[in-house]
Amino acid sequence: MSKLTHLDETGRARMVDVTEKDVTHRVATARGTVFMRAETLALILERRVEKGDVFSVARVAGIMAAKKTSELIPMCHPLNITAVDIELVPKEKPARVEIEAVVKIAGKTGVEMEAMTAVAICGLTIYDMCKAADREMAIGEIRLVKKSGGKSGTFIRKNGF
Amino acid sequence: MSKLTHLDETGRARMVDVTEKDVTHRVATARGTVFMRAETLALILERRVEKGDVFSVARVAGIMAAKKTSELIPMCHPLNITAVDIELVPKEKPARVEIEAVVKIAGKTGVEMEAMTAVAICGLTIYDMCKAADREMAIGEIRLVKKSGGKSGTFIRKNGF
Amino acid sequence: MSKLTHLDETGRARMVDVTEKDVTHRVATARGTVFMRAETLALILERRVEKGDVFSVARVAGIMAAKKTSELIPMCHPLNITAVDIELVPKEKPARVEIEAVVKIAGKTGVEMEAMTAVAICGLTIYDMCKAADREMAIGEIRLVKKSGGKSGTFIRKNGF
Amino acid sequence: MSKLTHLDETGRARMVDVTEKDVTHRVATARGTVFMRAETLALILERRVEKGDVFSVARVAGIMAAKKTSELIPMCHPLNITAVDIELVPKEKPARVEIEAVVKIAGKTGVEMEAMTAVAICGLTIYDMCKAADREMAIGEIRLVKKSGGKSGTFIRKNGF
Amino acid sequence: MSKLTHLDETGRARMVDVTEKDVTHRVATARGTVFMRAETLALILERRVEKGDVFSVARVAGIMAAKKTSELIPMCHPLNITAVDIELVPKEKPARVEIEAVVKIAGKTGVEMEAMTAVAICGLTIYDMCKAADREMAIGEIRLVKKSGGKSGTFIRKNGF
Amino acid sequence: MSKLTHLDETGRARMVDVTEKDVTHRVATARGTVFMRAETLALILERRVEKGDVFSVARVAGIMAAKKTSELIPMCHPLNITAVDIELVPKEKPARVEIEAVVKIAGKTGVEMEAMTAVAICGLTIYDMCKAADREMAIGEIRLVKKSGGKSGTFIRKNGF
Repeated sequence: MSKLTHLDETGRARMVDVTEKDVTHRVATARGTVFMRAETLALILERRVEKGDVFSVARVAGIMAAKKTSELIPMCHPLNITAVDIELVPKEKPARVEIEAVVKIAGKTGVEMEAMTAVAICGLTIYDMCKAADREMAIGEIRLVKKSGGKSGTFIRKNGF
Repeated sequence: MSKLTHLDETGRARMVDVTEKDVTHRVATARGTVFMRAETLALILERRVEKGDVFSVARVAGIMAAKKTSELIPMCHPLNITAVDIELVPKEKPARVEIEAVVKIAGKTGVEMEAMTAVAICGLTIYDMCKAADREMAIGEIRLVKKSGGKSGTFIRKNGF
Repeated sequence: MSKLTHLDETGRARMVDVTEKDVTHRVATARGTVFMRAETLALILERRVEKGDVFSVARVAGIMAAKKTSELIPMCHPLNITAVDIELVPKEKPARVEIEAVVKIAGKTGVEMEAMTAVAICGLTIYDMCKAADREMAIGEIRLVKKSGGKSGTFIRKNGF
Repeated sequence: MSKLTHLDETGRARMVDVTEKDVTHRVATARGTVFMRAETLALILERRVEKGDVFSVARVAGIMAAKKTSELIPMCHPLNITAVDIELVPKEKPARVEIEAVVKIAGKTGVEMEAMTAVAICGLTIYDMCKAADREMAIGEIRLVKKSGGKSGTFIRKNGF
Repeated sequence: MSKLTHLDETGRARMVDVTEKDVTHRVATARGTVFMRAETLALILERRVEKGDVFSVARVAGIMAAKKTSELIPMCHPLNITAVDIELVPKEKPARVEIEAVVKIAGKTGVEMEAMTAVAICGLTIYDMCKAADREMAIGEIRLVKKSGGKSGTFIRKNGF
Repeated sequence: MSKLTHLDETGRARMVDVTEKDVTHRVATARGTVFMRAETLALILERRVEKGDVFSVARVAGIMAAKKTSELIPMCHPLNITAVDIELVPKEKPARVEIEAVVKIAGKTGVEMEAMTAVAICGLTIYDMCKAADREMAIGEIRLVKKSGGKSGTFIRKNGF
């Protein structure tokens, strides 16, 4: 069983030491879904056809959140990410928006948390933009689907890709 | 059909004007779940019995995130929240941690986004603390379960409470 | 001659004491202009017709910056602004984008700096989004055009409105 | 015509991928001007002779803002800038303060936005420090005057240097 | 014995609920000292006579830090402080700079942590500005000397005022 | 006598240019102490045996503060620190908690301020968590005890180690 590297032998939290690790190119991809009523999705899409603002604001929020990850997740290292791209895909049955964030870096540690944070805040922003119409929306299955680079190599999620 | 109040008639994003709204006591409760392998939960719980640090760090992260909500969600108003409480409950079959955040304010607008942001960042922190052991964890169903106060009154979620 | 209230009698900087001031409704309007080549404006507008993203991103940046004002301007009080609206108007001869930000609050001090900061960061974001096409753009005449509320009452700019 | 690299082919905003770019030494110089009444400038200068605080506070604000650029400008990469220097020069006829910011880095992308943000926030701080005496001040012509380093090489502004 | 109100009965951290508390005028005064070599103090003072920049930068840093308190101290409530004033007094035998910060608010909870944070960051900034000359400086006895307002009334420190 | 490198020849503050400096592995260790009544320490320790939350929250606060150093100390360079570890040791006669923070980086400049900031905010958080029981606590002797790496080499504090 792997150990929880954020907790040292006496149980206290610490920021893991990555000083000696190599700088490599790393990429992480995370996904999540915002479930909503069909009418809410229609509302977004009609607006989106005209102006696209819900998706545009949510995408900006996700990109800016990726940059804030180390301020939000206590044991995350501050990182100079080199790329963020967020794709939003509306789907039906059930009505939902699927979010995918891809984050890159040339660094000593990975950007999994940056990709997941981008998805979470992007989803929360969709909720915020639409909550006057639908408070029952839910943000689901925020998960890492892929990461590459670094000593532990490539990971591809098996369950619920 | 309710309208999307964050988009004005020409479609541009704006921060909704709440200047004239009354100051009332408002409470919002949000929930979410971190799904994980049984071994991962056991690992947290053994540690937790000893030191409780995974849950402690995640709870601090969630409380601090509630205070950062208006920096993360573009159209949220800056608010002086007056209370945040986060409860973490480990459960089995399937192995998971359930998160509930309650946020309060005496203010002109509600704290739904603060409660949901607290849940999301709390869940992401659990992921971050444990990801060396289990990259397949997923954060699910972040949702508003209840809110009270303000002109729109009390909301209680119907589906998937 | 008015005195510089941020400097006390011995010359040291301080945050002016507004503890005893009344809470009143206050509004501030600021303006600025981004000058650019006609080709650059055409490029934005073509995109804007399709997707509107340059203006959308700039507007989000301006709204978020208004909320960050007290982190940026050292002697500004932290404030819970209650509304931000930013209008972007493309104009020709010379090619430019005019920016107007309106910020509101029910508070003890005004929101002039919030409106001006929104204009400045909105303009800088337009520059950033387009600088690959035109590095010669300039952001001009960021100015307060109007403010109301508070003990000093209504101000309307005389020169260069 | 150059393309707007912050917008991909489908029009959605993204943070441009600089992962593969070389680390080079880069410098950017930006300028701007705060126009004011002659009496306001005299007031600053008298104080400045005594204590220098308006200029000192504005300079600190500009330096700190350069470090916050990627939090303010949505598509900017987070960068570890290695030097910031801000020069403030009072001038007469018309009464004004000229601001010049020089920012450096050894990095994969340039620091133009950092230099321009430093100028903008420095100017806004001068406004804030003096606005009790003169609300008609205006901040003008924030512009990039020079940048060097990186694949696109050296740029020197032609118009309105 | 008073109880530790930040820890509930099950030991988990929470932000204390102040929703029902009255808004009153509150003031807190904190102090601290930066000890240094006599040569270092002389260096600051000579500069200070000329330009005053070490003290000026440190004062700005302290004021800005007071505004950031709730981002730094996990269980602190976000507050709209209404005044910050920092006084720096150089003293000899031993050579030192004494720091006093006074913070005010009209709010539901006190500003003790804001005053203490202002002192700490002001002291650290003096250290940073001078550390090339003297790495042996130390920042001592950061303490609350007085607070008034609120239900618990006035506190005046007995020991080591 | 060393010169104050943050002040240039005309006395204005600037962020020292480190562009040309080498990237080396650097470590800094800082210490401080929170003095309190014996009853307060007992209270923490009893809690700590059960749940450890005071120390856990303070440690998280210190780690997160280390990452915020360049936002707090005006002339500090933004840095990607690679490790933070904070040790808290309760001691008696007098009753106190000793704090030691170790910060590391592979970078162009040292992390002394990051280690000292971690100690200061960790100490302030202990104060905040316990102030309902003991307002007379004081945070003392925040100091750099050791640093290594970089051109100036290793420093070990002589006085008051």
